[in-house]
Amino acid sequence: MPTLVLIRHGQSAWNLENRFTGWWDVNLTDQGVEEAKAAGRLLADKGFDFDQCYTSLQTRAIKTLNLALEEMGRLWLPVEKDWALNERHYGGLTGLNKAETAKIHGDEQVQIWRRAFDISPPLGEADSEFDLSKDRRYAGIKIPQTESLKDTIARVQPYWEKKIAPDLKDGKRVLVSAHGNSLRALVKHLSGIPDNEIVSLEIPTGQPIVYELTDDLVATDRYYLSER
Amino acid sequence: MPTLVLIRHGQSAWNLENRFTGWWDVNLTDQGVEEAKAAGRLLADKGFDFDQCYTSLQTRAIKTLNLALEEMGRLWLPVEKDWALNERHYGGLTGLNKAETAKIHGDEQVQIWRRAFDISPPLGEADSEFDLSKDRRYAGIKIPQTESLKDTIARVQPYWEKKIAPDLKDGKRVLVSAHGNSLRALVKHLSGIPDNEIVSLEIPTGQPIVYELTDDLVATDRYYLSER
Repeated sequence: MPTLVLIRHGQSAWNLENRFTGWWDVNLTDQGVEEAKAAGRLLADKGFDFDQCYTSLQTRAIKTLNLALEEMGRLWLPVEKDWALNERHYGGLTGLNKAETAKIHGDEQVQIWRRAFDISPPLGEADSEFDLSKDRRYAGIKIPQTESLKDTIARVQPYWEKKIAPDLKDGKRVLVSAHGNSLRALVKHLSGIPDNEIVSLEIPTGQPIVYELTDDLVATDRYYLSER
Repeated sequence: MPTLVLIRHGQSAWNLENRFTGWWDVNLTDQGVEEAKAAGRLLADKGFDFDQCYTSLQTRAIKTLNLALEEMGRLWLPVEKDWALNERHYGGLTGLNKAETAKIHGDEQVQIWRRAFDISPPLGEADSEFDLSKDRRYAGIKIPQTESLKDTIARVQPYWEKKIAPDLKDGKRVLVSAHGNSLRALVKHLSGIPDNEIVSLEIPTGQPIVYELTDDLVATDRYYLSER
């Protein structure tokens, strides 16, 4: 039976400060580090093991993966990093405090940006300190300037089909360390969650999510490992 | 001009205890962690950057790489891990204290095992606690049971030719985090050091070694970054 475990990065500095983060490369907090280590210990204690790991190009997800793998004695596993697993790009909201943004634009507008399936936040200013167009890690990639959840899904799904699903079909056990919205994309696909429900599905930080899958990668169960 | 930097892992628990380590998967000490971070800061301060990283399947080298990359803000770089870059396999000496081994077998014999170019240590016992034949990371690999430096070179050299050299020729800047003897193999090749000299070339832990290379990968200089 194919093994797939998803994990959202541990708490980041901007999770704590309640700021829109998206593609900005924020580090884990001390709590986030502990969450990542605890996830690794839990996976090891429950007898999970892996053959291939996937993560984004963002420090908080990579570090979560590395810390979990170290706890499992599995730092030597192959890891593929790809921007396709990055967090949703929040455009001009990047860096803004969510409560302050609600004061300026109104709760309703912020809820639309956060929770509408196919509406993107406004573009950032060209001279914004959060502009990533010169970040070398994205050189040669036509990076988005802002994304709806639908846009995020549109780049996660092909990566799933091209990389992760074939590994699972080959019998590899796969661990994916990523972000709230890139994981929503995978959960929507695997669990068949409708557009209007996936937007509000909360994925907690540092909690391994286990998928039980048929050989054809049809999900028969999805659960938090900490609850079994 | 191709950029190649080699780094031996930071101090490990058995470096400190003066034990033959080889393929046994010993972790970094706190000092080793600090050495790795300092190496990353030094590389960043001196303006070094990379496109591709290589390391072994051993925790101490992988962790050294990860810690250095984190200090550089480069955790997102691609990393390939391969047993070809593992430390020399010390066979039946694995786990033994070097001074105690000298008391039992005599200084001369230990010096031969440590410093002869083409003499391997004795095989380990089949039921040794250091037997790695069931370690999943080496599944499918015909792993050595003991190695001379010559044997180590014989598996590092093809990996250099197949993976690292082509990357350099493609203009990629390469960082290799590995071990005393797998790095001796690369230094011997690049700097043309004779068999009887390479055996005693000491490679300090956590010190980035910079190679200046022509486009044809002929070394024109080799230096410790901390000395420039």
